[in-house]
Amino acid sequence: MKKIITIGREFGSGGREFGRRLSEALGIAYYDQEIVSEIAKRTSLSEQYVQSIVEQRPVFSFPIHIGRSFYPTANPIFEMNMAVYQEQARIISEMAAKSSCVIVGRCADYILRDDNPFRIFVYADMDSKIKRCLEKAQEGEKLTEKEVKQQITSIDKKRAQYYAFYTGHTWGDKLNFDLCINTSHTAIKEIVPAVAKLFG
Amino acid sequence: MKKIITIGREFGSGGREFGRRLSEALGIAYYDQEIVSEIAKRTSLSEQYVQSIVEQRPVFSFPIHIGRSFYPTANPIFEMNMAVYQEQARIISEMAAKSSCVIVGRCADYILRDDNPFRIFVYADMDSKIKRCLEKAQEGEKLTEKEVKQQITSIDKKRAQYYAFYTGHTWGDKLNFDLCINTSHTAIKEIVPAVAKLFG
Repeated sequence: MKKIITIGREFGSGGREFGRRLSEALGIAYYDQEIVSEIAKRTSLSEQYVQSIVEQRPVFSFPIHIGRSFYPTANPIFEMNMAVYQEQARIISEMAAKSSCVIVGRCADYILRDDNPFRIFVYADMDSKIKRCLEKAQEGEKLTEKEVKQQITSIDKKRAQYYAFYTGHTWGDKLNFDLCINTSHTAIKEIVPAVAKLFG
Repeated sequence: MKKIITIGREFGSGGREFGRRLSEALGIAYYDQEIVSEIAKRTSLSEQYVQSIVEQRPVFSFPIHIGRSFYPTANPIFEMNMAVYQEQARIISEMAAKSSCVIVGRCADYILRDDNPFRIFVYADMDSKIKRCLEKAQEGEKLTEKEVKQQITSIDKKRAQYYAFYTGHTWGDKLNFDLCINTSHTAIKEIVPAVAKLFG
């Protein structure tokens, strides 16, 4: 049976890592903001990507780096651009129709609501989000704890606005999710096998 | 390694069933409001109960029925009675010191905070809580959907007050839990093996 899993996440909570590991554990496709944006630019990629999953080639073959940066280039998530949203929503619907997948962000829980996705929200307390961001800081990013905290707050505020704008719902409200996972005290790689068992 | 698992829950979400099944799956002790109240009355019971767990006898040997009723007799949860709270907190701490256990309700997440319990919150949307309550209604309980909804709202309001009074925290705030489980669309018996795997 096809599995559609959507993941909402607070910035710095490790939601992408969780989604990536879960897709690996289940052997299904993985999409996030960067991948969806890239597919929107180059349609041929979507076919290649799904094909690579179907052929059981490594999930990581898709040419998008894993990580995060405070300095994204031309990041459409913060543009309240209906055309971009609609194009990305169309891509997400197409991808979900093609194969089982994990989709991080992009209001996918709402876009795919008629497909009854399993909806996960990944969150953490501020201290652990700051710690994770500092650990994953890329070279050249020299931010203080205070600056990191400001960035986290600012990015999540924009995510909440984006989500509310396109869905009419409150971002992070646990009633909109089937499972909410706090990564403050538990290692993501230890949570993934348990969550994967839900779909086994 | 000892496992201490605390479960907060909305009324009608199946939190007790979840806790009971999880304790069975893990083969560890189970306590809830009724059991703790009963132990508070008859101290000798606690020894018997823990002994029955240690000897791997059925977890269900404890002489407390499983179920729920809108008509509890002398239910101390709704009395803001510091003496009762303190006595029950002492019992919970003692039980947790003796053996691995699942504890439902009673602010156990807060009482045992120094033991780093794994904190679960079980919740559901109102429709599914009403449905569950109507299905589990005991003979002689003939309530309409509207009445059940009022009861659920009223009981959870009191739980929130009780929790806030003794812990100073907001009841059901996901930051106070490691895992929040929505039972609206997923069968509890299907969730339990996955959650048990976290402790395997």
